Amino acid sequence: MRDTTIIGVDWGSTNVRAFLMDADGELLDRRDSARGGVRLDAGEYPQVLRALIAGWPRDPARPVLLCGMVGAREGWAEAPYARCPAQVSDLAAGLISIVTPDGEVRIVPGLAAEDADGLMDVMRGEETQVIGAIDHGYDGLVLAPGTHSKWISVTAGRMVGLKTFMTGELFALLSAQSVLAKSIEGDAPDPAAFRLGVSRALADASLSRLLFSVRTEALFGRLPVTSTASYLSGLLIGAEIQGGLALVGPKPPKVTVIGVPALAALYADALAVAGVEVSATVDGGAAAARGLWRFSTHLTRQGA
Amino acid sequence: MRDTTIIGVDWGSTNVRAFLMDADGELLDRRDSARGGVRLDAGEYPQVLRALIAGWPRDPARPVLLCGMVGAREGWAEAPYARCPAQVSDLAAGLISIVTPDGEVRIVPGLAAEDADGLMDVMRGEETQVIGAIDHGYDGLVLAPGTHSKWISVTAGRMVGLKTFMTGELFALLSAQSVLAKSIEGDAPDPAAFRLGVSRALADASLSRLLFSVRTEALFGRLPVTSTASYLSGLLIGAEIQGGLALVGPKPPKVTVIGVPALAALYADALAVAGVEVSATVDGGAAAARGLWRFSTHLTRQGA
Repeated sequence: MRDTTIIGVDWGSTNVRAFLMDADGELLDRRDSARGGVRLDAGEYPQVLRALIAGWPRDPARPVLLCGMVGAREGWAEAPYARCPAQVSDLAAGLISIVTPDGEVRIVPGLAAEDADGLMDVMRGEETQVIGAIDHGYDGLVLAPGTHSKWISVTAGRMVGLKTFMTGELFALLSAQSVLAKSIEGDAPDPAAFRLGVSRALADASLSRLLFSVRTEALFGRLPVTSTASYLSGLLIGAEIQGGLALVGPKPPKVTVIGVPALAALYADALAVAGVEVSATVDGGAAAARGLWRFSTHLTRQGA
Repeated sequence: MRDTTIIGVDWGSTNVRAFLMDADGELLDRRDSARGGVRLDAGEYPQVLRALIAGWPRDPARPVLLCGMVGAREGWAEAPYARCPAQVSDLAAGLISIVTPDGEVRIVPGLAAEDADGLMDVMRGEETQVIGAIDHGYDGLVLAPGTHSKWISVTAGRMVGLKTFMTGELFALLSAQSVLAKSIEGDAPDPAAFRLGVSRALADASLSRLLFSVRTEALFGRLPVTSTASYLSGLLIGAEIQGGLALVGPKPPKVTVIGVPALAALYADALAVAGVEVSATVDGGAAAARGLWRFSTHLTRQGA
């Protein structure tokens, strides 16, 4: 089976990443596309997939593995959420199968969690990245920052808790469309202003009040308007850290950040203000590819 | 001087309210206009004021009193912020004078506060409403809910602290333009969903995380999409209450809400979830008129 190839696709709302891997999970080829799920009707997925992986060797005995928004209610076909606690085998048990003229595809379910207060949280795609980013037996936190930042607590390799923070979306809305936009010019990074925002959010949980300080800092000339974007980013990421650390306590044994280097560095900087060190950073594409590969090995072991 | 009339204008960003009062502060006439400050250049104020109060008896010895955005940097003329702690006499000392061909006008300064963490907060117009809403010697909180909700702590009739929460603006942005918009249909009130949001925000300060639960409550069918607007409103107002009560402790001696009856009732409902009773509610226009009148009596006492 050494010649077997594995095809996996991380199919998000806006972007698509397709991976061709060998049986050991080594990446042989990768293709990126902008044909994310929000632009597709359910009936368009088969032909978009065909074009995306055209020319790649496809083993008819091995389904193509898909994760992400492709499995949402408004995607290709709904793969109902698995529930925390969950590890790769639990998610593999929830794979849904679609048979197409080109062969079978299987879609990874999203993952849902319910906290002690009865609040639900969900992710789609990040569960596969987490599986690809951590080793067997991992204990600690995994962060996938972004539009909707995901914080996942992991115990003995099992995802046990999940919180979503609307950090990226709030930043975009507030910096462009709120009263704060008048106090913000450009988005050049100012590390000191960023850390000031982080430390204030860690000290005072009143986010909807702290946000207004973007305006007053500019109004009283305490921050130049060219530094307020960094300050706002710091407030939002600081609030995220305060809420996220509550998943595991103030000193998680390990913290893994999934994301591009610039974003991972920003979070490492913010976490340092909270006295927390990042153990590892993993690129999102690499994490997704490795997670999809882990699902494929699980299929093999099950004889699927 | 019994025949003397007093003219005061609450000149906000979007709306203008002009009041004609007798020497005892009794309202003789009121006019409303949509010629708020955001639509005016500085040079337009004199003629807009002339039209607004046309036909009202104007005592040449008594300046017309203005409060609100009219005194902002981008208003008619800047009336620099007074600082907490402040009572009516402190603000009266900061009135700025403009002499026009029609007579003198004076503009009430806004009020700024700096908290123990070095955070600045500001208001313009609400300081006059607070002065109009409370009695001499008042102890407790005054709330002026809205786009930017103001919480003012008052000790012995003196405004000592101030916090602004971006509640109304966040609600508008999130319900119309964020991912949450897909989970919200209409804005019919659902008191139970509202109270659920309030109690969750009181229990968990992670606002940017709680907001995402608007989506998950709808996704898992726990709240109908016709109830999620109320739930979102509850989350934001609950977060505001949690942060606002920190100004005075969990059991303020008095709580006065300034606002139209529907909004005041909503806040009374939310405060009840936190175990706090509203002592009084005051209409915003009535509070502004009475506050402007109090400034006028102060001028008299100073012989101005």
